[in-house]
Amino acid sequence: MSAIPDTMQALVLRYDGYSGTAEGPTIEDLKDWVSLEEIAVPKPEGRQVLVRIGLANINPSDLHYIKGEYGQPRRKGVAAGFEAMGEVVAAGEDPAAAKLVGQRVAVSVARTGTGAWAQYALTDAGAVVPLAPQMRDEDAAALIVNPLSAWAMVHLAKERGANSFVMTAGASQLCKLMASLARDMGMHAIAVVRREEHRSTLEGLGAGTVLNTAREDFEDMLLQAMKQNQPRMLLDAVADNHSATIFSAMPAGAHWVIYGKLSQEAPRLPALGQMVFMKKVIEGFWLTEWLGRATPEQRVEAFTEVQKRFISGAWKTDVAETIPLAEAPDRLAGALEGMNRGKVFLRP
Amino acid sequence: MSAIPDTMQALVLRYDGYSGTAEGPTIEDLKDWVSLEEIAVPKPEGRQVLVRIGLANINPSDLHYIKGEYGQPRRKGVAAGFEAMGEVVAAGEDPAAAKLVGQRVAVSVARTGTGAWAQYALTDAGAVVPLAPQMRDEDAAALIVNPLSAWAMVHLAKERGANSFVMTAGASQLCKLMASLARDMGMHAIAVVRREEHRSTLEGLGAGTVLNTAREDFEDMLLQAMKQNQPRMLLDAVADNHSATIFSAMPAGAHWVIYGKLSQEAPRLPALGQMVFMKKVIEGFWLTEWLGRATPEQRVEAFTEVQKRFISGAWKTDVAETIPLAEAPDRLAGALEGMNRGKVFLRP
Repeated sequence: MSAIPDTMQALVLRYDGYSGTAEGPTIEDLKDWVSLEEIAVPKPEGRQVLVRIGLANINPSDLHYIKGEYGQPRRKGVAAGFEAMGEVVAAGEDPAAAKLVGQRVAVSVARTGTGAWAQYALTDAGAVVPLAPQMRDEDAAALIVNPLSAWAMVHLAKERGANSFVMTAGASQLCKLMASLARDMGMHAIAVVRREEHRSTLEGLGAGTVLNTAREDFEDMLLQAMKQNQPRMLLDAVADNHSATIFSAMPAGAHWVIYGKLSQEAPRLPALGQMVFMKKVIEGFWLTEWLGRATPEQRVEAFTEVQKRFISGAWKTDVAETIPLAEAPDRLAGALEGMNRGKVFLRP
Repeated sequence: MSAIPDTMQALVLRYDGYSGTAEGPTIEDLKDWVSLEEIAVPKPEGRQVLVRIGLANINPSDLHYIKGEYGQPRRKGVAAGFEAMGEVVAAGEDPAAAKLVGQRVAVSVARTGTGAWAQYALTDAGAVVPLAPQMRDEDAAALIVNPLSAWAMVHLAKERGANSFVMTAGASQLCKLMASLARDMGMHAIAVVRREEHRSTLEGLGAGTVLNTAREDFEDMLLQAMKQNQPRMLLDAVADNHSATIFSAMPAGAHWVIYGKLSQEAPRLPALGQMVFMKKVIEGFWLTEWLGRATPEQRVEAFTEVQKRFISGAWKTDVAETIPLAEAPDRLAGALEGMNRGKVFLRP
C-alpha cells in the first residue's frame, strides 16, 4: 500500500446548508456549485474508514445536493459526491473499521463523512461494501444508489402484494435494473418513457409493458395497461402531472411512491375522492432511510444479491463517459447531457 | 306498534350512477337532484330491518351523493339519505335482525338499503345502533357519521403516536366533537378556521390552539403552533391549498389524512422532497371503510362510548333547523346556509 499523502485534489462544496430552491438535478456549470481545490486528506476515527477512490459516480441526488436541494445540509469546503468504489487505506480504532483496511469496496458516503469526488473519501465502516473480485470497477462504483434502490423498491412492491408496478423515467439506469429484476421475480413492470426509441431496449431487459407519454394514444394505452395488470404501486422519479394522471388511472389501494423529482412541475393532487374511497396513498422512498431501518442481515442479503446480479450479467452498468477529476469543472455539465446513454464517472 | 302502510313519502334520487363532476357538497335547489314522491315501503329480507324514521340528518356526504360525487353509485327512484334515528318496525328472518324489532335505534343506511330521507328506511341489522333511553332524538339522528368519525379519527391519531393534530373546517360539527374528545384524551387539537368569531367557541370546547387563515399573521401563527405542538396528523375536510401549506409546515413523519373535499380547489402537491426525506404521507379516511375493518368488539365499544359522551353532556348536537320532509324540496337549500350554526334535520 502506498503512503497516504497530506493533501488531495477534491471538488469541494461552495455553499453551506440548503438553498431553499427546488430547480431539480440539472446544472449549467459545475463551477457554480463546487470548486477544484487541494485540501487536507481527512483522518478516520472510531468506526470511520478512509477510502482511496478508484472511480466516483454521479447520481441525480449529487446534483440535488450540491445545489442545496437534498435531504441533508451542505458543508462548505467539504468534498461533494455520495458514491464511489476504491480501496480502504486507513481506519479508526474500532475493530469493525480496522478489519476493512486493504479491502476493495463500494462506498456510500455517510452524513458525517467527506465526499467521493476526491482522491480520498471518509465514511463509516457500515457504509462500505466489500466487493467480490469479479465485480468490474464501473459496476462497483454504481453498486449502491441505483442497484440497492432497485432492489429495495421492487421488494417493497412485492411485500405489499403488488404483482405489477408502474415506473416513470423508464429509460433511466435505475428503471433498467428494475425491469429485469421484476421479470426475474415474476412481476410485471410497466415502464413509462418519453421517446419511442426506448421501447425495444426496455422490452429486451424485461419490462412487461412500455408506455410512451409522447404518443397520442398514451391515455388509451395507460387505461388498457391498468386494466390488464392492475398495478398497485407507482415508483416515481419524475413527480409531474403525468405521474398524477397515471396514479388517478391506477386501481383501488394504489400507492404513489415518490423517490425523485426530475420534473420542476408542481403536480396537482389528483382526484382526491380516490384517497378517501379507494384507499390510495401518496408517500416517499429514500434509500438512506431504508438502509437505516434494514437489519444487518437484510443489508448483507441485499448487497450479496445485487453483486450476484452484476457478476451473472443479469445487470450491467452502462457507461456514457469517464472524466478525470481535475477536468470535471469544465467538462462535467456537458458530459451529463449524455446521461441517457449511461453513467458519467469521475476518475481521481 | 301501528300498522306499516304500503306506500310512503320519500325524497328519491333523480339520477343513476356517478356524475363525473367534483363540485362539492353545495346545492342551489334540492329539486335538481331529488324529488318528493309516494313510493312503496320496502320489505326487509334476511338480515335487513325496516326503520320508521323519527328524524333524518343531512351531512355533506349526502349532498356529494345526490350529486353523483360520492364513493358509491346513485340508484334512480330510491330514497336518498344516509343517517337518521327511528324505531325498527319489521325485520327479515335472520334472528340478529328479528330481535331488533321494537327498538329505538340510530340508523346508517347500508349500500343495499334504501335512504333515510323517507318515512321508512331499509338497512342491515349491523348498520343500526340500539339507543340508550337518555339519548335525545337530535343526538341520536346524528350519532353515526360525525361522532363515529370523530371517535375513529382521534383514536387513529392517538394510535399513530400523535399527541397533537391539526383539523381543518375547525368550526364544523365534526371538529367541535373532536376538540373536546382530544382534550379529554390528553391531546392538543389545533383547529383551523376562517373567521375570528369561531375562536372562543372552539377554545371553550377544548381546542388547544385556534388558527385563522383569514388573519395576516396566519403563517407566523402556523409555524409557531407547529414548533410548539409538533402535530403529526392533519385531519382535513377541505383539501385546498391552505391544507397543502399546513402540511408543508408540519414536522417529519406527518400524515395528511383527507376525509372530505369542501373546497373545489385542486391543491398543488406541496414540497415533494418532504415525502422523500421526511417520510410524510398523504392518505384518506372513509368511515364506511373503517366500519368494515373494525371488529364487532371495536364497533360496540365505539358506539357505547359515543353515546356516553352525549348522555354526560360532553358532546351535544347543535340544531340549526328541523324541516318537515314534504317541505324539504323548497326549503332545504336555504336552510343549509345556516349549517355553521348546527345540523339541519328532516322530520317525516
